[in-house]
Amino acid sequence: MTNDATHKTWSGRFDEPVSERVKRYTASIPFDWRLWRHDIQGSLAHARMLAKQGIISTEDLAAIERGMAQIAQEIESGAFEWSLDDEDIHLNIERRLTALVGDAGKRLHTGRSRNDQVATDIRLWLRDAIDEIRSRIRTLQTALLGLAEQHAATPMPGFTHLQVAQPVTFGHHLMAYVEMLERDWERLTDCRRRTNRLPLGAAALAGTTYPIDRWAVAETLGFEELCRNSLDAVSDRDFAIEFLSAASLVMMHLSRFSEELILWMTPRFGFIDLADRFCTGSSIMPQKKNPDVPELVRGKTGRVYGHLVAMLTLMKGQPLAYNKDNQEDKEPLFDAVDTLNDTLAIYAEMVAGIRVKPEAMRAALQEGFATATDLADYLVKKGVPFRDAHEIVARAVRAAERQGIDLAELPLTTLQQFCPQIEEDVYEVLTIEGSLAARAHIGGTAPEAVQAAIAHARARIAQRG
Amino acid sequence: MTNDATHKTWSGRFDEPVSERVKRYTASIPFDWRLWRHDIQGSLAHARMLAKQGIISTEDLAAIERGMAQIAQEIESGAFEWSLDDEDIHLNIERRLTALVGDAGKRLHTGRSRNDQVATDIRLWLRDAIDEIRSRIRTLQTALLGLAEQHAATPMPGFTHLQVAQPVTFGHHLMAYVEMLERDWERLTDCRRRTNRLPLGAAALAGTTYPIDRWAVAETLGFEELCRNSLDAVSDRDFAIEFLSAASLVMMHLSRFSEELILWMTPRFGFIDLADRFCTGSSIMPQKKNPDVPELVRGKTGRVYGHLVAMLTLMKGQPLAYNKDNQEDKEPLFDAVDTLNDTLAIYAEMVAGIRVKPEAMRAALQEGFATATDLADYLVKKGVPFRDAHEIVARAVRAAERQGIDLAELPLTTLQQFCPQIEEDVYEVLTIEGSLAARAHIGGTAPEAVQAAIAHARARIAQRG
Amino acid sequence: MTNDATHKTWSGRFDEPVSERVKRYTASIPFDWRLWRHDIQGSLAHARMLAKQGIISTEDLAAIERGMAQIAQEIESGAFEWSLDDEDIHLNIERRLTALVGDAGKRLHTGRSRNDQVATDIRLWLRDAIDEIRSRIRTLQTALLGLAEQHAATPMPGFTHLQVAQPVTFGHHLMAYVEMLERDWERLTDCRRRTNRLPLGAAALAGTTYPIDRWAVAETLGFEELCRNSLDAVSDRDFAIEFLSAASLVMMHLSRFSEELILWMTPRFGFIDLADRFCTGSSIMPQKKNPDVPELVRGKTGRVYGHLVAMLTLMKGQPLAYNKDNQEDKEPLFDAVDTLNDTLAIYAEMVAGIRVKPEAMRAALQEGFATATDLADYLVKKGVPFRDAHEIVARAVRAAERQGIDLAELPLTTLQQFCPQIEEDVYEVLTIEGSLAARAHIGGTAPEAVQAAIAHARARIAQRG
Amino acid sequence: MTNDATHKTWSGRFDEPVSERVKRYTASIPFDWRLWRHDIQGSLAHARMLAKQGIISTEDLAAIERGMAQIAQEIESGAFEWSLDDEDIHLNIERRLTALVGDAGKRLHTGRSRNDQVATDIRLWLRDAIDEIRSRIRTLQTALLGLAEQHAATPMPGFTHLQVAQPVTFGHHLMAYVEMLERDWERLTDCRRRTNRLPLGAAALAGTTYPIDRWAVAETLGFEELCRNSLDAVSDRDFAIEFLSAASLVMMHLSRFSEELILWMTPRFGFIDLADRFCTGSSIMPQKKNPDVPELVRGKTGRVYGHLVAMLTLMKGQPLAYNKDNQEDKEPLFDAVDTLNDTLAIYAEMVAGIRVKPEAMRAALQEGFATATDLADYLVKKGVPFRDAHEIVARAVRAAERQGIDLAELPLTTLQQFCPQIEEDVYEVLTIEGSLAARAHIGGTAPEAVQAAIAHARARIAQRG
Repeated sequence: MTNDATHKTWSGRFDEPVSERVKRYTASIPFDWRLWRHDIQGSLAHARMLAKQGIISTEDLAAIERGMAQIAQEIESGAFEWSLDDEDIHLNIERRLTALVGDAGKRLHTGRSRNDQVATDIRLWLRDAIDEIRSRIRTLQTALLGLAEQHAATPMPGFTHLQVAQPVTFGHHLMAYVEMLERDWERLTDCRRRTNRLPLGAAALAGTTYPIDRWAVAETLGFEELCRNSLDAVSDRDFAIEFLSAASLVMMHLSRFSEELILWMTPRFGFIDLADRFCTGSSIMPQKKNPDVPELVRGKTGRVYGHLVAMLTLMKGQPLAYNKDNQEDKEPLFDAVDTLNDTLAIYAEMVAGIRVKPEAMRAALQEGFATATDLADYLVKKGVPFRDAHEIVARAVRAAERQGIDLAELPLTTLQQFCPQIEEDVYEVLTIEGSLAARAHIGGTAPEAVQAAIAHARARIAQRG
Repeated sequence: MTNDATHKTWSGRFDEPVSERVKRYTASIPFDWRLWRHDIQGSLAHARMLAKQGIISTEDLAAIERGMAQIAQEIESGAFEWSLDDEDIHLNIERRLTALVGDAGKRLHTGRSRNDQVATDIRLWLRDAIDEIRSRIRTLQTALLGLAEQHAATPMPGFTHLQVAQPVTFGHHLMAYVEMLERDWERLTDCRRRTNRLPLGAAALAGTTYPIDRWAVAETLGFEELCRNSLDAVSDRDFAIEFLSAASLVMMHLSRFSEELILWMTPRFGFIDLADRFCTGSSIMPQKKNPDVPELVRGKTGRVYGHLVAMLTLMKGQPLAYNKDNQEDKEPLFDAVDTLNDTLAIYAEMVAGIRVKPEAMRAALQEGFATATDLADYLVKKGVPFRDAHEIVARAVRAAERQGIDLAELPLTTLQQFCPQIEEDVYEVLTIEGSLAARAHIGGTAPEAVQAAIAHARARIAQRG
Repeated sequence: MTNDATHKTWSGRFDEPVSERVKRYTASIPFDWRLWRHDIQGSLAHARMLAKQGIISTEDLAAIERGMAQIAQEIESGAFEWSLDDEDIHLNIERRLTALVGDAGKRLHTGRSRNDQVATDIRLWLRDAIDEIRSRIRTLQTALLGLAEQHAATPMPGFTHLQVAQPVTFGHHLMAYVEMLERDWERLTDCRRRTNRLPLGAAALAGTTYPIDRWAVAETLGFEELCRNSLDAVSDRDFAIEFLSAASLVMMHLSRFSEELILWMTPRFGFIDLADRFCTGSSIMPQKKNPDVPELVRGKTGRVYGHLVAMLTLMKGQPLAYNKDNQEDKEPLFDAVDTLNDTLAIYAEMVAGIRVKPEAMRAALQEGFATATDLADYLVKKGVPFRDAHEIVARAVRAAERQGIDLAELPLTTLQQFCPQIEEDVYEVLTIEGSLAARAHIGGTAPEAVQAAIAHARARIAQRG
Repeated sequence: MTNDATHKTWSGRFDEPVSERVKRYTASIPFDWRLWRHDIQGSLAHARMLAKQGIISTEDLAAIERGMAQIAQEIESGAFEWSLDDEDIHLNIERRLTALVGDAGKRLHTGRSRNDQVATDIRLWLRDAIDEIRSRIRTLQTALLGLAEQHAATPMPGFTHLQVAQPVTFGHHLMAYVEMLERDWERLTDCRRRTNRLPLGAAALAGTTYPIDRWAVAETLGFEELCRNSLDAVSDRDFAIEFLSAASLVMMHLSRFSEELILWMTPRFGFIDLADRFCTGSSIMPQKKNPDVPELVRGKTGRVYGHLVAMLTLMKGQPLAYNKDNQEDKEPLFDAVDTLNDTLAIYAEMVAGIRVKPEAMRAALQEGFATATDLADYLVKKGVPFRDAHEIVARAVRAAERQGIDLAELPLTTLQQFCPQIEEDVYEVLTIEGSLAARAHIGGTAPEAVQAAIAHARARIAQRG
């Protein structure tokens, strides 16, 4: 970046130039250059409105459009010269525009301020980012649905407290994440609606004296609503915080999934194997195959949580309207968006690279008396009140545990010592397949219920887009 | 609370009772008793469905309904004996029910688990809490709208960077908070939608073997949707985190408002006075009148942020499905709801107790060259490009500042030295009233625009409820 | 609590009493009553200094001492009547003192303010709390050292990335937590030093006009240093934040330990069993034995992190000196101290209730090629550069894995195909015991090194206290 | 960076190369290249120990030293070719070393692992960073002491609750920040002690089979202690979290100072002016001079808080020993260090650029009855109990306020109506200078006490270094 202190946009009032250190400390161009497309997009919409309203001439508009087209091309080709002296993306572009098209460039800032301009740019940028993330969520859900369909009937232990609880199917387990991601998608959609409102027209904080048409700008830019109060328009960063909250939940869900993948990969479990391309080895232990990607995802959760806390702290206790504190909104937002995009993309690929080991899942299911609840339910159906049935089965489990065998391996006579109502048909409910099939209601783990859930999820995606 | 270790619900499997310390550490009844109404509400809906499906008899249902009615009455009257041995609200009520109605009470838990039961209770409780908070937001907005209407034309300095920027009206300033609260209301409404889904039927984690009808339960309880996956249903706390995020934003907005009230109360500003009943004095300085309430609100913001972080941390990296960690979800949620309810209520009262001092606002407006932007706009309308006009005005401000006078006090000849296009009519745009009136577009600070914004906000409330 | 608005300490200046809602919102007595012992302790030290300096008479001091003795007795016996009208612990006690001993009681507040009084109380209280926590850390370390000594030579798999990495001993593993807790102890000791400074004498914010002797008060109270600036003295809450940071690290360590206990308890691992008294069962699944205590500890980590965030947020951006925001410092502090005390106590008991299953640990060690690094080291000692050795072993592991056997089960001829330098003596280094014994340096996992580490830790505790 | 998948350090075990996306997601070289100096420093110390112990030859050591010298020179000159394929700084350097010096380079990794290597690098890096920050704290304190000395007797209003409380001097106010920074310095010094411990020798997690000498490495590198447990050594990031906590407190202090600077700059206060070079203007309001630097500092506080939360989240619930999550430790640490260094440096410059306006401070002091406490103290010295005196003064203040005058302007006869003990000498205690001078004890605001505090602070710095 070049760095030349002769032409500060607001320098007329000042006796001494900003120091070099201050310039570096206060400049945002090292990170806000990313907004360039949206800055140009917003400026063009503003200029067209100015021309429509007769505030600038059509010649000026044409000059601005021509200049912006060239600037866009320069930035894309890498030819654009960024300058730290121009502080931010807005002044960098405006300076170049004026160099290219003269007084028309100087007229572009009529009726606006950097305060409403930057608010508009971030909203436009975040709207696009949200759309990309929503699309990546859909891709990941699709990958999960495919794997769930293959394993709608593959039994694995369902855990609570990391103790074997009841049999579930692997497909059913995966569908839990499809549901979580669906809520993420919903939250991002809600956040998008509140992001998609036009601040432009608020100018510095109070509105402008020019006869502007805010709805015209909103329509050009695809905004659904106007920010209805100028002071709020320039100081509101709710949408960014709301996005970071939604992003934190996405990462929380993926950190849970990662925790499980790591667990399932540990040799004692061995429920799955991840394709080699998602793992790395050790510099010292030649045998290692480490699930680096899920571990990093779990770790990056902290990063996004941290950005949320940073932004909440930032806004706390600020008086109206715009304060320079707000410049700190961009880096956490950019980094959270990048983290989500990368993580969702890599996750979708990784899910396709999961190799399932049904035999290990079944082996684990045989430790832990996974069908004890089925025995209790069996007793209830024979007329035993639930709480009594629970107690009976607990005693049976204790007996089996002492002998080191499963419930299904206890002879009928032994079972009948705990409860005389038990009959030969008990052994059907004690099988894994019997246990699974019996939970066939909406949301249950029976293979047919899982297939129905997959169909429901696919229809929902088709409907919502 | 009584404390008797002889009857643990799940004790059949255990060799030794839980230690006293463990009992205290793990019990949730000291705080989750607050869920009692919703626990009974959920149990009754479950029992009715069980009866409808023929899983329990109508006699059992009648007994359960009779027992629950008595329990509700006992709790309300304070006669209910809470026991630490029964761990949580669910077992306390179930134990009492069984004592009152015998085996019917033992049958109530058929086809459910505490995991789906507690998830249902919290959702029912939070749904009510959200509705109360939304209603308090409306009350506060109404108070703000009333005050804004009175002061739609009262000039005060609009600040950016806490420097005088441009004139705004006090009513316009207040309307910024009406807008923030509207977004809070929207977010809570969105969160309510995701809260209002039925987990019951998920049982421990996998669903149940009984022929349950989940939609019947949902309809009885007013839920809009079912949790579609049993593993997700018992482990999902997204709604609580989403609520805490929305609550953090409410508090952030009120901390900004509080910061301003405190500032406006400091003698150098003196823009407002708060009614004595919202202030306290000093134990040592007899002259003090301290804005304690806004200061506490600002301080309590940290509390709610902290609860959000606690809950995000809680869920991070948990494997499916339910883990005991989740028991820690309630206290932050309860405290955040209490904090919001109290804070919104006290704020609505306090807004009505604000005494505005327009003369102090006007005096402050006369320091800081608040109409400098108007001069620049004036020049632009005379044909000077905006950037050049900005530079001209900056030089004029510097001259006025050196003489210790306002722009409007510079003689015409002096002004013309900076720019020959300046004429006698410039003095009109340099008045506060002229500056205000000129910003008459949607969202601007002109008194008529503020009145329009008030009308728009009222219509929006009327429409949305 | 009684509630009577007639006698506010600072009411002379006010036209209207504080509203009931405001009273509840602003009162701290519902939680700060816990400071009562330290409030009395601080007041007595202050009174003695006042008498020593001739600011109050010895008769007044005697009256104050008599009154305080009675108040302490009333509070302990439950006879003390707390009043919400007296806002906080300080006024509750002072009011009662004046009722008991008349004007002497009114003279107690001479030369101080609630601002320096409350700062003194919290520091005294936290100093005691830190000492209790440090002592509980020592108890937990002692329990760990005992268990580590028993298992200094018990092999278990050392994991990185939750993959089997190299053999370690269970005692070695436990010693990692002894080290973490030692750092916690150190940090709390450092925090205690900064807590143990006297704010009293700062009065409201500027000091006092009385000829006080701050060092005399400090000595009575056992403070090591004075707060050297009055504005800082009343507004400083660094010690509370520093404590919460140290507390967060304690909880983080115990959450890691909990994660491991939960993992080791899952049937596939089965490395340990927790005594039944630290576990609970399921309301629906009769076979369950859930590690509730470690799960809750893991969950309560979020709670303490949240308190840290709350306090950091609280102090951010507050102008000097005291603001009411600071009243929000107590609840997070109290709750964090309670959480730590309970958690450390329960952990020390629980460690004593761990039943180790060495055979399961050894079985797990045989999966995962845990001695692969030893083979690489063997090759290096034969002259192969480390990086080349690493590559050779990686290929050998791949071959063994394909055959489903361990490295030690590959015949010599096969091993020699990977590297001709391998000889018969290789099988020694491939044993678990050989691998362990070879890591005998300070900090290594060899049984003798573990014994040395235990001795070192015990000596350190003996020396540090 | 080049990117060539042919030579992964650990690739022997893998069937397929890491995907491009995974490579980007998991590589740390884009940020950990910053550790290069410390990586080389650590490697050289390790190599020297290996040679001393006879594990590598002196020729190998000489080759490694020669290679490292060239690498350092290549990196400094920009000639070094970084490769994404080599994942991290350690492999980038090792690869180049092997290219330069052959097998000696391959022997460098003998007896260590990347796990202990990276832990060593970060500790070395952070130790230097802490030293730089401590030095910048000293520079800022020195600037504050200089300004405080100039204004040891300059009266300004002391605020509590942002209400005028009592007179203080500006020098006294500044000294509050000197004290805060002193505690920051202490905390960083304590953190340095815990950072300055050697992990090397822990290898991957269990120690190494080579006859290493850890104390020799520690001495070469200036470490005070060894990490005493290998599992802890590779997984401990306490020092980073402790640093981020200390850093959060530094930023919290500077955010408080910033809040005050911003307030003092607002025209209604006008207590100070900041040199133009620390301010910026507005793109639209030509008159604006905005205190951008303090606003950004206030905003950047959130950033550092966020990093603390990120790291606490990161470590929560991780099983031992090293997991890939830990790679996420570096970016928050680097960014926090940069933020502190920049902020402290700019603050020290800015303090020197503060222009104090004593007349504005005095004017503000005359609003708010700042000497009311002095009147109460006067009455106490006449024998009135403090609580009664407080009440009397409160009534006098109310009377004066109604007349719009200060206490000192009430005639003696009026004052005597509130309390007959008041005599002519009361007017001395009601002056600002009298009020200040009377608070002459340690920590008080009397000019002589402030001078003593300055001398004490300077001596402390001289003693501590």
